[in-house]
Amino acid sequence: MKPIGVIHSPFTQKDQTPIQASRSPAVGQVEVYPEFAEGLQDLEELSHIILLYVFHCSSGYHLRGRPFLDGHLRGLFATRYPCRPNPLGLSVVRLLERRGNILEIQGVDVLDGTPLLDIKPYVPDFDVRSEVRTGWYARRSQAGN
Amino acid sequence: MKPIGVIHSPFTQKDQTPIQASRSPAVGQVEVYPEFAEGLQDLEELSHIILLYVFHCSSGYHLRGRPFLDGHLRGLFATRYPCRPNPLGLSVVRLLERRGNILEIQGVDVLDGTPLLDIKPYVPDFDVRSEVRTGWYARRSQAGN
Repeated sequence: MKPIGVIHSPFTQKDQTPIQASRSPAVGQVEVYPEFAEGLQDLEELSHIILLYVFHCSSGYHLRGRPFLDGHLRGLFATRYPCRPNPLGLSVVRLLERRGNILEIQGVDVLDGTPLLDIKPYVPDFDVRSEVRTGWYARRSQAGN
Repeated sequence: MKPIGVIHSPFTQKDQTPIQASRSPAVGQVEVYPEFAEGLQDLEELSHIILLYVFHCSSGYHLRGRPFLDGHLRGLFATRYPCRPNPLGLSVVRLLERRGNILEIQGVDVLDGTPLLDIKPYVPDFDVRSEVRTGWYARRSQAGN
């Protein structure tokens, strides 16, 4: 795995970084390295893209932990906690504009300088499911926390 | 990056593997290696999970290519084509059952033996967007192809 670019964001401190892209109004830039720019063709027609990146400031992991949004010990893979055996992050962001190899995005929830591994189109036919149960997350939401 | 498990599927040939998880009724198993099993706690409450894995049978890439679902040359990052600079795959699958470190899943669209890198909960609050434009994919769908 080798970065194809870097994500520029307004966030330089972990504790000031939004917890999820869907909760963030922040604007940032994806800088795709010039040698990969040709692969961005057609992207400008999409309103949303999926970013796969490295949680580069996370180190080590525990298989059970307390998510930011919950106070209970949960299995790591039932959470989006950034410290993972493979520190891979995933965010769906709005694509505002493409200028050559620079993507202006909204909904940034990563630290400035995050190494980018892949970009995929966000396609509801592929990525959206209905009748979803979300376990602890739903109970937490219902409790109004 | 080091696999945390392996995905068992009915598919041993690329050309017989479904193109997307959302189009696949196939059942398979995620075998999470025992040393990571503790991290699966609470997963059984979820109806859907996100699998991140390696396209282990892809080799090399072209920055422009013709997607399976389209006949035109497209920028690689505007497609879900498996041959990518970092061969990372992403599928949302239904979790039918957890038996210890084995997850019975439905919606399998990967080759048997696919190395698993991460599991994340699928949470509509995080992962679903509305008012989405999908560019070439939408035009293709409207054309009834």
